[in-house]
Amino acid sequence: MIDRQSRLLTKSRKDVSKDEASANAQLLERGGFVNKLAAGIYSYLPMGLRVLTKIETIVREEMTAIGSEEVLMPGLTPKAPWEATGRWTDPGTQVQFQLKDNGGRDFGLGFSHEEIVTPLVSQFVRSYRDVPKSVFQIQTKFRDEPRAKSGLLRGREFRMKDMYSFHTDATELDNYYEQVVAAYMRVFSRVGLNAFRVKALGGVFSPEPSDEFTVEAPVGEDTIFRCDHCDFAENKEIATVKAGDTCPNGDGSIQEIKGIEVGNTFRLGAKYSSAINWTIADKEGKTTPVLMGCYGIGISRLVGAVVECSHDDHGIIWPQAIAPYDVHVVNLMRTKADVADDTAVLLERAGYSVLYDDRPEASVGAKLADADLFGIPVRVVISERSLAQGSIEVKARKSDTPILVAPTDVVAAVEKERA
Amino acid sequence: MIDRQSRLLTKSRKDVSKDEASANAQLLERGGFVNKLAAGIYSYLPMGLRVLTKIETIVREEMTAIGSEEVLMPGLTPKAPWEATGRWTDPGTQVQFQLKDNGGRDFGLGFSHEEIVTPLVSQFVRSYRDVPKSVFQIQTKFRDEPRAKSGLLRGREFRMKDMYSFHTDATELDNYYEQVVAAYMRVFSRVGLNAFRVKALGGVFSPEPSDEFTVEAPVGEDTIFRCDHCDFAENKEIATVKAGDTCPNGDGSIQEIKGIEVGNTFRLGAKYSSAINWTIADKEGKTTPVLMGCYGIGISRLVGAVVECSHDDHGIIWPQAIAPYDVHVVNLMRTKADVADDTAVLLERAGYSVLYDDRPEASVGAKLADADLFGIPVRVVISERSLAQGSIEVKARKSDTPILVAPTDVVAAVEKERA
Repeated sequence: MIDRQSRLLTKSRKDVSKDEASANAQLLERGGFVNKLAAGIYSYLPMGLRVLTKIETIVREEMTAIGSEEVLMPGLTPKAPWEATGRWTDPGTQVQFQLKDNGGRDFGLGFSHEEIVTPLVSQFVRSYRDVPKSVFQIQTKFRDEPRAKSGLLRGREFRMKDMYSFHTDATELDNYYEQVVAAYMRVFSRVGLNAFRVKALGGVFSPEPSDEFTVEAPVGEDTIFRCDHCDFAENKEIATVKAGDTCPNGDGSIQEIKGIEVGNTFRLGAKYSSAINWTIADKEGKTTPVLMGCYGIGISRLVGAVVECSHDDHGIIWPQAIAPYDVHVVNLMRTKADVADDTAVLLERAGYSVLYDDRPEASVGAKLADADLFGIPVRVVISERSLAQGSIEVKARKSDTPILVAPTDVVAAVEKERA
Repeated sequence: MIDRQSRLLTKSRKDVSKDEASANAQLLERGGFVNKLAAGIYSYLPMGLRVLTKIETIVREEMTAIGSEEVLMPGLTPKAPWEATGRWTDPGTQVQFQLKDNGGRDFGLGFSHEEIVTPLVSQFVRSYRDVPKSVFQIQTKFRDEPRAKSGLLRGREFRMKDMYSFHTDATELDNYYEQVVAAYMRVFSRVGLNAFRVKALGGVFSPEPSDEFTVEAPVGEDTIFRCDHCDFAENKEIATVKAGDTCPNGDGSIQEIKGIEVGNTFRLGAKYSSAINWTIADKEGKTTPVLMGCYGIGISRLVGAVVECSHDDHGIIWPQAIAPYDVHVVNLMRTKADVADDTAVLLERAGYSVLYDDRPEASVGAKLADADLFGIPVRVVISERSLAQGSIEVKARKSDTPILVAPTDVVAAVEKERA
């Protein structure tokens, strides 16, 4: 697929508000990936939506691979199920957008879906034969967030994957929980993030401790105490150690770092199932409570986290798996551009998605600045200067050194730069 | 891909409320495709989400093919842009869910996105070189619908494709409008619907007449006067003819029918662009108003419309392109089921998605009733009786006559039944 830059809706822009202090807000808006409608509320423009969709596909694959079934629950939900668990008022009134319909009935927008998924699944899971079960959705969530800031890191409307599992056996729940953790680590690795597991509070979801999955970043809101040798890590909220301590697991040293939480996992126990008196019959016919786990990944937050962790002064550096395009072909020729057209076609035929900067009116400087800003993993530059030597330039976004190749060798060169 | 029915979250059910008078509400709930949370608010369960996703993919392909770029705008939108066009109060207070955040600021949930897309696109479309442009999104919409009923046909939360085009030349808008109409007819044809074009009012979108795309169905809320010979059709709202009249275009006769509106197209003119004083410079530097069109397809309504148009007393009959699975392998054997397992694998290897009813405890009657209810286009039944003759049964859902084939010939037989 070739998308010609001259025909795209969006253009890069320089007029992004200086209020946007975070790198992801600045770079994603300047690059035309997203557009801010209100604090914490963004539109995804074509290139931003391509990134979001690629992340959603990766998350979907990994959740399906651990036996979870995809559903899609409503965002507009009646008051009753939230009242049954007490979350209509706590934290409801603080974080839930609540409203009335024209008939005066109360509704809340979904900020999480325990109250919806539990009665839903209880209609189908009636006996020990029906467990374990796991369902997930990828959905737009709403949260009345007083601290909406940092671009896609903390939104009032955001994309989320939320998954829920159902068990009758605590050991089985623990086993599935660890399967989810492994799937999460695969997701983060595939999207190009170096995330680690952190012990944390259960918060509004559960009295039990939870796990957070965090990437180190100065802009992050979480303070983590982490061992510099092993995988010991605790959120400051529940930390048993402090900076400079010796790690309880060995002789590493505890460091204090800032991190962005990109996922979390909770053992809910019977909290939500008992709120609706849902028990099921075991093999002997004895009723047993349903134990649940819930597991979240902030899909749109991942977009922001990747930008925070992978950019330089000139722009974004997208990991290949979630880049909006594989290759950016940049034509700097003032005259006829057959070589550039042919190069784009060669790369398309080799199976790459190509963004082709074919704009006749843009300056050389503007084109190269856009290429850096957009951050597509490999750039192919066609210029009069290199063509005079029979070559075009191929360069990885993360590299400083272009390689010169004959136009007919472009596919092999791109492959090499991607390796 | 093979999904074993024994492991799926959902089961068919018989306890669907009798209040659900429409066939789509009854069959989709009984089959475990959707689950009702509140009036006009449904969860999509795994099989229902598979259908929805297939329709979304078809719509996306056809909109992309006419040069539209996909975006995703917020569902939670501030009051100001709606005030600028007057729709905060009319029809806002009637159809828009409106709410305040904790800071007392007014928001409305998106029931359509003219007010959001127009300022968004105006940031990027500044000169005659930037037009025409077309953007679309596939999104969850909210509408405070007093008449929420008829299953997925009229929801308060629903999936919609909304597209917007931008022009400076009225002829160019007309040309694009007809391109959209052609793309819409391809969409409806691909999802298995026999939709026709109907002249209608512009309604809350535009003072100009619009086109609706309608499928004939007794449950439909629209009354259409339609020629029995040509494509003349008018919504009763603006009809210039009545039942029994001679068609103005020839010698056909006008019939009165009931229909479900599955899509619509509007010429908006400069209504929304002038509300934000958006003009652009033409070649001579003269400012000219931006003309818009908007184009909707009710994605979730399509699911309901297909069921209304394609079912029998026993269940749904899915068109192949949007069926949740290609083939339903039903094992009726009481004993070892190697042949059934092998059949499912043969079909999977041939590239078909397979739902495999491997449930040991379900009765023969329950399995065959489920197969009819679920409506997967081709059914392959493995039973002791037919195996005694060295055969298995292959039958299209819409056919009454199974064919008997050797288990090793199942792929060719399925192909034939799909033809």
